[in-house]
Amino acid sequence: MKSLFLRGEQVRLQEIPSPSPDGEPRIALRLAGICRTDLELAKGYMGYEGVLGHEFVGTLLDATDSLSAGTRVVGEINCGCGRCSWCHSGLERHCPNRTVLGISGRPGCFSEQLTLPERNLVPVPDSIPDERAVFAEPLAAVIEIFEQIPVRPMDSVAIIGDGKLGLLIGMVFTRHHTGPAFLIGHHPSKWKSIPEIPCIHENEIGNDMNAQFDIVIEASGTVSGLARAQQIIRPRGTIVLKSTMERSEPLNLTVSVVNEVTIVGSRCGRLPTAIRFLERTDLPVERLIEATYPLDRAKEAWKHACQSGALKICLKTKESA
Amino acid sequence: MKSLFLRGEQVRLQEIPSPSPDGEPRIALRLAGICRTDLELAKGYMGYEGVLGHEFVGTLLDATDSLSAGTRVVGEINCGCGRCSWCHSGLERHCPNRTVLGISGRPGCFSEQLTLPERNLVPVPDSIPDERAVFAEPLAAVIEIFEQIPVRPMDSVAIIGDGKLGLLIGMVFTRHHTGPAFLIGHHPSKWKSIPEIPCIHENEIGNDMNAQFDIVIEASGTVSGLARAQQIIRPRGTIVLKSTMERSEPLNLTVSVVNEVTIVGSRCGRLPTAIRFLERTDLPVERLIEATYPLDRAKEAWKHACQSGALKICLKTKESA
Repeated sequence: MKSLFLRGEQVRLQEIPSPSPDGEPRIALRLAGICRTDLELAKGYMGYEGVLGHEFVGTLLDATDSLSAGTRVVGEINCGCGRCSWCHSGLERHCPNRTVLGISGRPGCFSEQLTLPERNLVPVPDSIPDERAVFAEPLAAVIEIFEQIPVRPMDSVAIIGDGKLGLLIGMVFTRHHTGPAFLIGHHPSKWKSIPEIPCIHENEIGNDMNAQFDIVIEASGTVSGLARAQQIIRPRGTIVLKSTMERSEPLNLTVSVVNEVTIVGSRCGRLPTAIRFLERTDLPVERLIEATYPLDRAKEAWKHACQSGALKICLKTKESA
Repeated sequence: MKSLFLRGEQVRLQEIPSPSPDGEPRIALRLAGICRTDLELAKGYMGYEGVLGHEFVGTLLDATDSLSAGTRVVGEINCGCGRCSWCHSGLERHCPNRTVLGISGRPGCFSEQLTLPERNLVPVPDSIPDERAVFAEPLAAVIEIFEQIPVRPMDSVAIIGDGKLGLLIGMVFTRHHTGPAFLIGHHPSKWKSIPEIPCIHENEIGNDMNAQFDIVIEASGTVSGLARAQQIIRPRGTIVLKSTMERSEPLNLTVSVVNEVTIVGSRCGRLPTAIRFLERTDLPVERLIEATYPLDRAKEAWKHACQSGALKICLKTKESA
């Protein structure tokens, strides 16, 4: 079957054997999304080699105890050992022995078929089309913020970074948070896709914004973004770090010590919560899709996703209508 | 009057005018402690110029509404405007217009006399000798940790850095926390002064310590200390940053994002709480004093404090018995 495969820093479409029907439940890919983490992996982050991809919606090929074949599913990407205290407390995404779909020790979803353990599968209600369901994984990562830190209705929130994740965070906070929320970025062309998010160009951030925000969410994945966050967060405020970086860069956290700022690392969230969120709201996540390519043209899709300023680039198969 | 004065990077004993009796209450210095922050100031941190020093116990020279002249006092070092929401909520130490004793906009305590606003003064009970009272300010900074983060009785705690502050934190956690607490340092000679603290040499930290601690307190003031903290903290654990750094250094917070670690900047605490703590416990803080010099020999004391591995160096006046 066709797969988008990473070896060293080379990404190529290649034929690999289909998964065995005797193992974990098989899923036929319908729609997958390319994430910034995928691009980081290709730069050497995590030292991963294999099929890329972790954002998907697919069709279950093998019936499980609770799901019939043919069910549309999304999947929790972290696969825990099922035996440690992390797994037992519902936090298998911190299991020290976990594999992670398309990121660590487990082939990803940019492929005609993939597999995941039965307990990782989450059915998708009919009311959620593929174009929305494919955002379940990044949306879970956004909702994770609310699991980790208290967000009070009046809190002022700044989101740094107008990449795919930053815009998704901006969409959630603009629509589902009552306090003021702003997005700080440097690609005004991207802002058109979500006109309801108040966006500010980073060059317009003056000293009058210093220490003004209760919560700052850093989603640019740059040290300058974190430096900016330290500038605009109020004393005793909270900075949420949403993105990973491949390299070390010069940084000084002294201002966060002086201002007693809390910096919270934040990664994956719960897929069932994200699916409920998509079911119960009209969050127009699909507006973040810039282009969709058939899996056959995955290499072209990858090049598009690598362009600065690209929004969500998707891969589809014949499974998706 | 004699004062230890910082100008540029030059520290010298010099005569300056005594404070006016018409202003804030005057305090005659009894005993003062030299802190790592003082040494950082002399390297350019904060761009401060003036009389150094912020850890002290003194004798009140001017009666106030609630305290009579002759009362022994310590003092909250942050002087807020008294009008903003920070000051009104008891957090004048975050007032944006604050001055800070010997650190920012206000002469320090390495001087025969100093002044502070009346509301900053905290009387010292007779049961606390000068040698313990002089630790009120750094002890308040240690207790601040308990104000900022939940410390559960069973939490495992590692303290990185065996400087003066690290040892004081170690002393508090060894005596007043039931869970396991270790100090990680590289000056075994210092550990003799507090034999009850379990200390580990940083070279002995192996991979078996990875992700083992619920709470890690970084008090070394080095980037390598923070890197070490990121190594030994468990997923979803809390790193407390207790020290400031003058320079930016290469750092990568990715592992804290992946492990969803919380990093909490922590600075000054409440002086009245520290005085109550000293009154109600037998915490032997005075064991951290390595040497005490008369104010006349402050330059010599400063040189001693600058030596790697020096514990607390104090300055005394004739006021102190």
